Amino acid sequence: MIRHTVAFRLKHAKGSAEERAFLSAADVLAKIPGVQKFEKLRQVSPKNEFSFGFSMEFADQAAYQGYNDHPEHTRFVKELWTPQVEKFLETDYERL
Amino acid sequence: MIRHTVAFRLKHAKGSAEERAFLSAADVLAKIPGVQKFEKLRQVSPKNEFSFGFSMEFADQAAYQGYNDHPEHTRFVKELWTPQVEKFLETDYERL
Repeated sequence: MIRHTVAFRLKHAKGSAEERAFLSAADVLAKIPGVQKFEKLRQVSPKNEFSFGFSMEFADQAAYQGYNDHPEHTRFVKELWTPQVEKFLETDYERL
Repeated sequence: MIRHTVAFRLKHAKGSAEERAFLSAADVLAKIPGVQKFEKLRQVSPKNEFSFGFSMEFADQAAYQGYNDHPEHTRFVKELWTPQVEKFLETDYERL
């Protein structure tokens, strides 16, 4: 199991229509083959600079790679993520 | 639900006995009242500087506060975490 997570902050104002639209559009990621346990999260700790998070799990590295290379993922990154995300941090976890 | 996660890097050498001892000692956190779904994780993405992670969930903010204030937690932080952890980042998530 690989748990891929990304914490991020948007360029949009908090509570804006643009923010809602971005978060809604991210649902497309949940439908990409191999994606399990897709979650959209609000980041609430004052100890970092991020406002949201996505989390998903893959059975193995091949499934993760298939997601990364999937045209719906690359389209999301190019057309929505890169233009609208101000800062982000990816972490990938495996169980110890 | 609040998911408290911390990504971290130890001062110890990778694969060292000190590393194993630290990770083993962290099991005490799982037994603190209110802690659910405690996980010890290996961080495998090259896109950040962390090597491990802990993840746990709390029913609500009161349970989270109870964990933070619990003497077993404060003892762990003082005696094990602070002396042995080189760098860390906390993120706390709620479901959107």
